[in-house]
Amino acid sequence: MEQPRPYLVGLVGTGVTPSLTPPMHMVEARALGIDYVYRTIDLIDLHLAPERIGEILDWAQRLGFDALNVTHPCKRLVLDHLDRVDPRAAALGAVNTVVFSPEGRIGYNTDTTGFEAGFRAGLPGAALDDVVIMGAGGAGSAVADALLRLGVVRLTVVDLDLGRAGELADELAARHERAVAAASVVALPDLLGRVDGIVHCTPTGMKEHPGTPFPPELLHEGLWVADIVYRPFDTALLQAARARGCRTLDGGRMAVHQAVDAFELITGVRPDAERMTRHFQTLVDPQPILI
Amino acid sequence: MEQPRPYLVGLVGTGVTPSLTPPMHMVEARALGIDYVYRTIDLIDLHLAPERIGEILDWAQRLGFDALNVTHPCKRLVLDHLDRVDPRAAALGAVNTVVFSPEGRIGYNTDTTGFEAGFRAGLPGAALDDVVIMGAGGAGSAVADALLRLGVVRLTVVDLDLGRAGELADELAARHERAVAAASVVALPDLLGRVDGIVHCTPTGMKEHPGTPFPPELLHEGLWVADIVYRPFDTALLQAARARGCRTLDGGRMAVHQAVDAFELITGVRPDAERMTRHFQTLVDPQPILI
Repeated sequence: MEQPRPYLVGLVGTGVTPSLTPPMHMVEARALGIDYVYRTIDLIDLHLAPERIGEILDWAQRLGFDALNVTHPCKRLVLDHLDRVDPRAAALGAVNTVVFSPEGRIGYNTDTTGFEAGFRAGLPGAALDDVVIMGAGGAGSAVADALLRLGVVRLTVVDLDLGRAGELADELAARHERAVAAASVVALPDLLGRVDGIVHCTPTGMKEHPGTPFPPELLHEGLWVADIVYRPFDTALLQAARARGCRTLDGGRMAVHQAVDAFELITGVRPDAERMTRHFQTLVDPQPILI
Repeated sequence: MEQPRPYLVGLVGTGVTPSLTPPMHMVEARALGIDYVYRTIDLIDLHLAPERIGEILDWAQRLGFDALNVTHPCKRLVLDHLDRVDPRAAALGAVNTVVFSPEGRIGYNTDTTGFEAGFRAGLPGAALDDVVIMGAGGAGSAVADALLRLGVVRLTVVDLDLGRAGELADELAARHERAVAAASVVALPDLLGRVDGIVHCTPTGMKEHPGTPFPPELLHEGLWVADIVYRPFDTALLQAARARGCRTLDGGRMAVHQAVDAFELITGVRPDAERMTRHFQTLVDPQPILI
């Protein structure tokens, strides 16, 4: 008659109320027979400054939460309030998952591990000698680390803001002891003519920012193309890439795998990534898209 | 594939970690197909002063709790932090259930409604002209209010501390516009010779305080006997009463019905009180007692 202690998890950040991560976790838990409650803690709705993240952690722990996912603008701020940080998260300087364990508060970054796992699952065998990443913000930073762990030999960071691209390239080079280049967007035609693949990490292609991040004419069948935009799943960039015969990886992979990895860190149970992907697709677009 | 929003509830107080209320709620919810997480928030373990109950309410609400049960020593303190209080709880000056509703924080007292419901279910038709309540503490106070709502005509409050008995009698009399007497324990032989029933509301009979609260020789078959002690279910007092042919009501009734009423206030769903009682018995004593 007894049931195991159910899990209690939250997502802290600004504008998280409509996040799809809570239903992803809860529906998968239910499929696995695990009781699991996942709440959003929206700093805007609650009129809480991001700097209060330490206090939020204190209270979540007191009130019985097992873990928190943490997103913008708290991924760096949260570092000051942890007992231990996973090396990949520490290298990145950003944590998106905090587990309240008997050993204390442990921080992880499943954006970077999620991209890595999603890439292995979705683009197995893709050539990794020479890769371009477009977008040097927080997401680009997590993805770039994942690419270097995946074995990319020559990485080039492209951003509209060349200074920001240079800073990220320098950080990555220092961290991974590998040469990482920075380039302006005007170098894209040359770069795309010679590299193996490109990962797109800017908001272009989202419902709110339609279009492609560069002229689709630069695409050709020798390239693989990954997008981290997942609303919609099938972005204009991915459509153009497929039309030219490119292998593609959609942004849903990273979104699902960050949840897969967090779920496993929290429960110790590896969820079914394929089932979570199918569910995620129905959440993003209630009329399933064939991709 | 979607599931309804699951419920998140907590129990705040000192020493609540071993409480049986969380499994009572969660197992019943599971039987009803409702996702339900119930956490204990133990002020001792957390080194939180009871005066911080307002802050605890603030954070529980922010972090997505639907309701809190509140117990010693916060039942009165919590009154200052509510938007509305149910009249029965307000009369008593004690709240044990706070629901975070769209209309604000509403306080209830399901100790008093729980005793009332348990009495109706367990001692239907019992004579209520003349009743003694023994014990004028917080539990006695909630039970006395319930007895007057049940229709007791003459109530006598007995306590080792006659002053405390007198205070409670005066409060009850003012509140219910009925004569309520106070008496010393030395009056018990006389009282038990003439009243219809007695409700026992002191800790005597608990595992830690074995024995009966008065000499069992005072019992006779013309009396009904209710106990609010529920560990064990079958107290020495109830055993002695049954041996003399009395109708009895065990303390499990109140314990279960306070949870039944709280569960309904929180979810809007009336749980199965009989199923919860059977489950509660297995929690109190893993080898079911036949009573």
